[in-house]
Amino acid sequence: MNIGVLGAGQLGRMLALAGYPLGNRFTFLDTTGNPSAGIGEVIVDPDNQHLAEFLAKVDVVTYEFEHLPVMLVQEIEKHKPVYPSSRAIEVCQNRVEEKALFDRLNIPTPSYRVVESAEQLEAAARELGCPVVAKSVTEGYDGKGQAVLKASEEAAEAWQSIGHAQLIVEAFVDFVREVSMIAVRGRDGEVVFYPMAENQHVGGILRYSVAPLPDLDVQVQQTADTYIRTLLDELDYVGVLALELFQTRDGSLLANEMAPRVHNSGHWTMDGAVTSQFENHLRAVQGLPLGSTQAIAPTCMVNVIGREGDNTAMLALSNTHLHRYDKAERAGRKLAHVNVVAATHTELLEKVRACQALIPDAPPVEWSFSNTL
Amino acid sequence: MNIGVLGAGQLGRMLALAGYPLGNRFTFLDTTGNPSAGIGEVIVDPDNQHLAEFLAKVDVVTYEFEHLPVMLVQEIEKHKPVYPSSRAIEVCQNRVEEKALFDRLNIPTPSYRVVESAEQLEAAARELGCPVVAKSVTEGYDGKGQAVLKASEEAAEAWQSIGHAQLIVEAFVDFVREVSMIAVRGRDGEVVFYPMAENQHVGGILRYSVAPLPDLDVQVQQTADTYIRTLLDELDYVGVLALELFQTRDGSLLANEMAPRVHNSGHWTMDGAVTSQFENHLRAVQGLPLGSTQAIAPTCMVNVIGREGDNTAMLALSNTHLHRYDKAERAGRKLAHVNVVAATHTELLEKVRACQALIPDAPPVEWSFSNTL
Repeated sequence: MNIGVLGAGQLGRMLALAGYPLGNRFTFLDTTGNPSAGIGEVIVDPDNQHLAEFLAKVDVVTYEFEHLPVMLVQEIEKHKPVYPSSRAIEVCQNRVEEKALFDRLNIPTPSYRVVESAEQLEAAARELGCPVVAKSVTEGYDGKGQAVLKASEEAAEAWQSIGHAQLIVEAFVDFVREVSMIAVRGRDGEVVFYPMAENQHVGGILRYSVAPLPDLDVQVQQTADTYIRTLLDELDYVGVLALELFQTRDGSLLANEMAPRVHNSGHWTMDGAVTSQFENHLRAVQGLPLGSTQAIAPTCMVNVIGREGDNTAMLALSNTHLHRYDKAERAGRKLAHVNVVAATHTELLEKVRACQALIPDAPPVEWSFSNTL
Repeated sequence: MNIGVLGAGQLGRMLALAGYPLGNRFTFLDTTGNPSAGIGEVIVDPDNQHLAEFLAKVDVVTYEFEHLPVMLVQEIEKHKPVYPSSRAIEVCQNRVEEKALFDRLNIPTPSYRVVESAEQLEAAARELGCPVVAKSVTEGYDGKGQAVLKASEEAAEAWQSIGHAQLIVEAFVDFVREVSMIAVRGRDGEVVFYPMAENQHVGGILRYSVAPLPDLDVQVQQTADTYIRTLLDELDYVGVLALELFQTRDGSLLANEMAPRVHNSGHWTMDGAVTSQFENHLRAVQGLPLGSTQAIAPTCMVNVIGREGDNTAMLALSNTHLHRYDKAERAGRKLAHVNVVAATHTELLEKVRACQALIPDAPPVEWSFSNTL
């Protein structure tokens, strides 16, 4: 089966690496003019001239990036199956729609307001109580289009800096940790869940994901499973869905946002789970049985951003797996990730610290459970 | 680093899949006119017209097939580093040289004679005592160019059927099992060993490899480690070396043959070991630190030969990993392998039997230790 992928970055690359062993071939449609997948066939199409050629080659279409024109995806759906569907894209690329869906499905979220001017932003900040987080309704990812307001007086400046016509303003959540759920739904409606991961962001960019969590209450995992299953079923979803949540001091979960694709916080599954998120996404979109999501051992994903790490020294660390994206260095660019696997979380923490020391500008790793190890 | 690979079959394909995450790119030189790797850049060069183009693209050269013209490899060595060296190819493609090396390094082998006529073959069969195995000195692999003589009177017929000018005749070994060692030597002389695997051949073609072995005496593994280390050091070898041996009733090991490359009996490492043989081969040829060869769990590699299996049903078996080579079906052709992983050898045996039932013409799995489980 030839898989068509919209986008040709590192997520597409890792999908292909997982799909060749299944006998798949890959055709990427790149609309940026700057593909980086480095494998498979890439159709570079910044002016939307080659869609027919792309469609003629592929049996099924998926994507690595949800900030796509919905009309383009709807057009593709007329010709070939697209998984996840354009409906998932529509919801996930618009924070207002996303929040409305969470509300409708009784999935708790931080309190929020939708605002359309600096004045409304200021009022919302006062109502919710600062600090608040203001986010553009569309096109936000990797911390872009966001601002934190420590006081309602900062509204005018924040409005200016984000520069969007509509924002979501959220009450600041006093969370214990940020977590994410990766789940997969097959074409037959079967759903499998990966163990919840804890994520450490710095400046809105993910730096570390660790799973499974040694101190996770079974009930909390089950609650998260229920939330994401509700979303999957509601959207009649096929493929991997990522749901980011906050866990508060009393253990409850608040949904932050979701992404209708393989997700950076699921990269740990490449070496830490029986079946990777990439393989399971491909199994799903092809209608194949889903693979086990069981964790093999405590694993931490470490992002390499902006500048390459000391790869030789990292490979000398035992059970440490390098995944380079074959991209040139550039500030803020995700260049690679490293999956560190260990027999215990204590050993894992030591190894991740050793790894961190080999990556330029990598922040100190901080897990919510570090001091209990 | 751009890795040049001589040959473009499934071994090259799996090298590339292991190498992209290390940041490598791949250029294959195919001299058969029928490449199947399906990824990377393939230079199809049946008439040896494009060697300069190949050499200009690559930083280091390795190969997936040792039955290459030694002079070609020596020519390449003048321009780019080749690992393993042409010396390894020279020894491994000639059974007389290989046996002489085993003898010189005091690595036990089955008794043998070199013969150059039907009459000499008959005499050797009488001296060694039938049954004996006659093998062409060159170009033999996957059971090709071999014959078993049950009586010395069969010499003329066997000589005819093999059709080579020089044969090796070996005493039949009353082995308990066929095993293989996969070891890796780095450019700095570091050597790592995978746990010994037990191999089941049918008609000279590998069908199953299982590792680690639950009943393996530590001393036997150490003896095998010593044998292969001696070979690696003697050849100043860089990369993966595979050594096939017979284990006899008293536990001793007799070397059968070796292959200077990643090997079918090491495919289990893709899902059953911390670092696969493919990644470790690439680490070695690039001068990177070698990865852990530790087994994660009992694993059995099942070959799919001639006709595709029921892939959907196989993927429904838990912890079962499909590795397809994207080749058309053809009698005797290796199309894929499946790595089955389980918590115990007993569970593994059950799952391998379930897998076998889904593969056309797969023989019943028979491990030497099956009845002790």
